[in-house]
Amino acid sequence: MAFNHKHLIDITEYSADDIMQILETAVTFMEVNERKIKKVPLLKGVTVVNMFNEPSTRTKSSFELAEKRLSCDVLNFGGKSTSVVKGESLVDTLETLDSYKIDMVIVRDRHAGVPRLISQHTPAAVIDAGDGKHQHPTQALLDLFSIWRAKGSLDKLHVGIVGDIGHSRVCGSLIPALKIMGAEVTVIAPNTLLPARPDVLGADHVTANLNEALPELDVVYMLRIQRERLEGAPYPSLREYNMLFGLTREREKFMKPDAIVCHPGPINRGVELDSYMADHPERSVILDQVYAGICTRMAALYLLLGGSDNGLSA
Amino acid sequence: MAFNHKHLIDITEYSADDIMQILETAVTFMEVNERKIKKVPLLKGVTVVNMFNEPSTRTKSSFELAEKRLSCDVLNFGGKSTSVVKGESLVDTLETLDSYKIDMVIVRDRHAGVPRLISQHTPAAVIDAGDGKHQHPTQALLDLFSIWRAKGSLDKLHVGIVGDIGHSRVCGSLIPALKIMGAEVTVIAPNTLLPARPDVLGADHVTANLNEALPELDVVYMLRIQRERLEGAPYPSLREYNMLFGLTREREKFMKPDAIVCHPGPINRGVELDSYMADHPERSVILDQVYAGICTRMAALYLLLGGSDNGLSA
Amino acid sequence: MAFNHKHLIDITEYSADDIMQILETAVTFMEVNERKIKKVPLLKGVTVVNMFNEPSTRTKSSFELAEKRLSCDVLNFGGKSTSVVKGESLVDTLETLDSYKIDMVIVRDRHAGVPRLISQHTPAAVIDAGDGKHQHPTQALLDLFSIWRAKGSLDKLHVGIVGDIGHSRVCGSLIPALKIMGAEVTVIAPNTLLPARPDVLGADHVTANLNEALPELDVVYMLRIQRERLEGAPYPSLREYNMLFGLTREREKFMKPDAIVCHPGPINRGVELDSYMADHPERSVILDQVYAGICTRMAALYLLLGGSDNGLSA
Repeated sequence: MAFNHKHLIDITEYSADDIMQILETAVTFMEVNERKIKKVPLLKGVTVVNMFNEPSTRTKSSFELAEKRLSCDVLNFGGKSTSVVKGESLVDTLETLDSYKIDMVIVRDRHAGVPRLISQHTPAAVIDAGDGKHQHPTQALLDLFSIWRAKGSLDKLHVGIVGDIGHSRVCGSLIPALKIMGAEVTVIAPNTLLPARPDVLGADHVTANLNEALPELDVVYMLRIQRERLEGAPYPSLREYNMLFGLTREREKFMKPDAIVCHPGPINRGVELDSYMADHPERSVILDQVYAGICTRMAALYLLLGGSDNGLSA
Repeated sequence: MAFNHKHLIDITEYSADDIMQILETAVTFMEVNERKIKKVPLLKGVTVVNMFNEPSTRTKSSFELAEKRLSCDVLNFGGKSTSVVKGESLVDTLETLDSYKIDMVIVRDRHAGVPRLISQHTPAAVIDAGDGKHQHPTQALLDLFSIWRAKGSLDKLHVGIVGDIGHSRVCGSLIPALKIMGAEVTVIAPNTLLPARPDVLGADHVTANLNEALPELDVVYMLRIQRERLEGAPYPSLREYNMLFGLTREREKFMKPDAIVCHPGPINRGVELDSYMADHPERSVILDQVYAGICTRMAALYLLLGGSDNGLSA
Repeated sequence: MAFNHKHLIDITEYSADDIMQILETAVTFMEVNERKIKKVPLLKGVTVVNMFNEPSTRTKSSFELAEKRLSCDVLNFGGKSTSVVKGESLVDTLETLDSYKIDMVIVRDRHAGVPRLISQHTPAAVIDAGDGKHQHPTQALLDLFSIWRAKGSLDKLHVGIVGDIGHSRVCGSLIPALKIMGAEVTVIAPNTLLPARPDVLGADHVTANLNEALPELDVVYMLRIQRERLEGAPYPSLREYNMLFGLTREREKFMKPDAIVCHPGPINRGVELDSYMADHPERSVILDQVYAGICTRMAALYLLLGGSDNGLSA
């Protein structure tokens, strides 16, 4: 089946079929990553630029490994070493990259909309690796992949997302993606951490009562809390947050017996999650999510850059 | 034809034939860069060190891509992470690199003469990627390539170079290179931006009147103006500079109908060039220059590191 | 012969046979490094993470070249760009790396014991590339290699180690390694630069009189002196240090005719070593040590990651 997208910028442009095609391709790449030789020549001679204009360890290294295991030529670009310091505009930088005959740009930027802007000024394919508070579509794909593998299906699942919804680009992609796949979504947060219009992202329910929501959930997705956000805020304090919204050992009794726990990482242990839940052998799929990052990114790179033409058996 | 140079440090050591051999080899590499698989195994197993002791985005990424598309092993070295912080001398660093059995060092340094010094202390081939205000020979080669492709020939062309001649390493290589290829060179700048002895670089004419010079020029090469240089200077101010030396839409009427516009990038839009001229579909070859950077650097790497022995058909 | 180690963290866990197997394998890799194509596909598709949490030029680039010449996929991780800035614990970082299905972590850290801790939390192989003042086993191996190649054997050699023994992770691996190989070790330092219990590392003799020790030594191993350590210290001053413990031209007369000089680099010329001795054509093996670094690291990577199964003839 041909893959009919050039970019991965806005997950709402993808259909359930598109997303399933990525997840199923990612299963194939799981096999590659479990071999001794974790490298395939599928994208040999293809140039991918990692343009991370914000610090990132996990996402950047996950992409970089995915690219190298597909045999891409990788150029790390961005950060303080760009010619932004020389006052060049983003558009001029893009046209420069374009003249290098690159095939794909992976972009992270603190400004929402930069990946779209880039896609309008270069013939290269673009993947949004996180733009401001807007989207982070490969995070959503890896979350879907982990949930799908753990639960067998996404349709009709009830997913609760707990935490700083208002400042989360993870939510910006994950909530719409879950809706596309037929899941039910409940958002759980104090009012102070909700967006001005919580309906905007498409969640089905909004509540500030975690204990009440927990018994309904198949998946409990804990967002990372940035301590700086709570320090000095009138409510909740870090301690209040942990008491009311932290997923702790004490709260496990409210959970369904087969409910799983997700987190995009890195975890603030003792804030949103205690170690008992973070490392729970049956419930936590947090490390599966990291591994899913490699597999789904390989799948997205592969499908966006040539997909079925090359043939995965090449 | 064998290539009889080991280093690319001083463009005046190259003959017109040497330069033509690089430009013609670069044409071959254009074909490689337009393929889907933009990678050839010509320099597989060859180790190239990029030693950029000054920040650089464009030149460094252009070299890095050229190296990777030739299948070199690339080691990025230099900047703040070098053991210069531990007080090691440059010569000791070089001897270390040498003991790594490296084949080539690409060096950028804010001190003129460092690439030559390096070539005297290591058996590796050396390319000067910009040393102080001295030379930047691969920039000259990519400029010649772009002009040659746009105009069909270099001989007898009249090239005007406008701007901060006195602080320009681009000029340090470009003016001699144009003279070697038989071009006529006019330098256009306020006295304050000329070197103490403007004859030294070998330009045929020097003037401060852009309007008067323009009608004679086949190529208008605009240098980048560093705002810091003009801020606080008695004359010209940024505004005066743009008025007298900026290539603007209004000034196009003085240009030959087929005159082209070059710029080494990154552009300070609104200072030395307005967007109308920078993006002029017929006249501007600025993005061709960026692309030419990849192709000519691949050609220089290839010829310096083994050239015709390997055979480009390998 | 199979190689029975998974990690290279503590050199005292290696037998003389283990060490000889690495040194002999390194000889094979010398041949690779002297070819035009200095690359072998022995570890193709294998992922190695360089986790340097302390600045390093020499050790890091030596490992990186060794990895690339073995065709590994290389991920540089660590330094300021890690998510340590986001408050993630080391163990969480490790579990992340682990989920990437990596094969080996090369780790440098300013805290002793970090490589061991890492090996307890990931199934990947671990090489200690220097941890605090504790160990630096690949430095010991390359030193042994250089001495063995220069002197023909290690058994019964008398090696003097001069300098800041108390703060040296080089000593932490080198002294035990020399003892394992049957050498005699004399430590030469002012009391202020000795560890609290100088016997702990296993040296045979301790003295503060370099002149008296020199006539007995086959190998004079000069440690790097960090100027900061001596500045402001009551004794010795830099000048006193150089006078009493510097290996100078004047002191050559006390040396055996065939005694050699080693140094782990980078050299503080004029402090622990003058240029006459550092560059001595017959005595100095300092650059051989740098080259030995590539060859022994290739050997260690190869043996730890699959060794004789693959076959060096692949």
